[in-house]
Amino acid sequence: MVIPLGEDNTIMLKLYSFGPAANSMKPLLTVFEKGLDVEKHRLDPAKFEHHTDWFKAINPRGQVPALVDGDKVVTESTVICEYLEDEYPTEVALRPADSFGKAQMRIWTKWVDEYFCWCVSTIGWHRYVGNMVKSLSDAEFEEKVKAIPVIEQQVKWRRAREGFPQDMLDEEMRKIAYSVRKLDDHLADHEWLVPGQYTLADICNFAIANGMQFGFAELVNKQDTPHLVRWIEQINERPAVKQMFAQVELEKLGPRE
Amino acid sequence: MVIPLGEDNTIMLKLYSFGPAANSMKPLLTVFEKGLDVEKHRLDPAKFEHHTDWFKAINPRGQVPALVDGDKVVTESTVICEYLEDEYPTEVALRPADSFGKAQMRIWTKWVDEYFCWCVSTIGWHRYVGNMVKSLSDAEFEEKVKAIPVIEQQVKWRRAREGFPQDMLDEEMRKIAYSVRKLDDHLADHEWLVPGQYTLADICNFAIANGMQFGFAELVNKQDTPHLVRWIEQINERPAVKQMFAQVELEKLGPRE
Repeated sequence: MVIPLGEDNTIMLKLYSFGPAANSMKPLLTVFEKGLDVEKHRLDPAKFEHHTDWFKAINPRGQVPALVDGDKVVTESTVICEYLEDEYPTEVALRPADSFGKAQMRIWTKWVDEYFCWCVSTIGWHRYVGNMVKSLSDAEFEEKVKAIPVIEQQVKWRRAREGFPQDMLDEEMRKIAYSVRKLDDHLADHEWLVPGQYTLADICNFAIANGMQFGFAELVNKQDTPHLVRWIEQINERPAVKQMFAQVELEKLGPRE
Repeated sequence: MVIPLGEDNTIMLKLYSFGPAANSMKPLLTVFEKGLDVEKHRLDPAKFEHHTDWFKAINPRGQVPALVDGDKVVTESTVICEYLEDEYPTEVALRPADSFGKAQMRIWTKWVDEYFCWCVSTIGWHRYVGNMVKSLSDAEFEEKVKAIPVIEQQVKWRRAREGFPQDMLDEEMRKIAYSVRKLDDHLADHEWLVPGQYTLADICNFAIANGMQFGFAELVNKQDTPHLVRWIEQINERPAVKQMFAQVELEKLGPRE
């Protein structure tokens, strides 16, 4: 157990996130796997806490997760994970030691960030976030939107309220079907995404894929994607994963509802 | 000068790319800056060489750049750049030594890959690639499209031929204006993107931004974005950049035409 402590023995690492799902899960699971002692601040998306002034003073983009390490702030979930590997090289290494292994890991984490997470996210917003904002009055909603720093996120909140266009939902479902096939095909031949080692590639993909066996059961199931389901179950059996789910509450609006 | 040689003194590193622009420029400039001896294979996009069977045997996605290092293939431009830093730690280091510097570098390279490169690319395709494919017959075009492995790339080729929707072009121009403002604001206070060091963050952003002072002169100019122009000119003055442009030809369809 590594405990990064300040001069007065106070914990230096603070992680701001939602519960253990999607991008918030990536650094959460990383710190649990590495046994790092981190002060965890769980923001409530239903209270729009990530768009408050106090949080935007930490991350001006108003997005979780964000890691505070002493006087430094690191944002972007995948970047935080690699930062933790760079700065806290514990016995549990979640990145391959060799250059080619690192490259394979980064191709998989890049793919999640640029493709897989977006299609799953749109459907997640369509199903859960819409309900969250439809109860607001127009004036309340506009005030919430005004506090969002990233214009593309403003657009996403508006679409969640008004309803996503059907052709967009269809296209995202096509991408999800392609994504789970790609994962299943790869995992048919490999225990982990980077052959031979459980890495950040697995953590970052698991952060998006976990729960799809319930929320997207028509696509992710033992019949159609046996290797992907095996991999999801295998990761859920890891002590760090059980510990994370036991200690950090998942939002009620999450994909497991 | 580092020369990775095989057992029989043959060069081990082979880089497949287009000319020095956009994603192809990232690893090209990296090998020139690091002084690595690399066998360069320049593919011709106008001949659709990246969609040929021989190249898809190297990268099944039919995309350049791709690096071949002995029996290993590394794809994805940004991943290739970090691979070169990991595997060939030359005197010229293009990645900060400290963890926080690495994180800042990765936030900037990630931003290029997820945002900046896409909006600039769409306008580039609209202006240049359309002309390239409009001269083909319907049958010839369909045969070209059939050879493209990535479905989203097939869509892009079709749009280039049929014409991109105007609302998409408007939105991409908005994103470009936002992007160059973001870069200029940051470079107003810093010589390089990661404070204190010329890194892959500069290389990967320069790969997209260079030439915009001509192709997007209404947005990138000494009046509106003086710091961005200063940074572009400063990088163009580097010996490695001059050497790269002298040795590797830029396509005629590139943004400098």
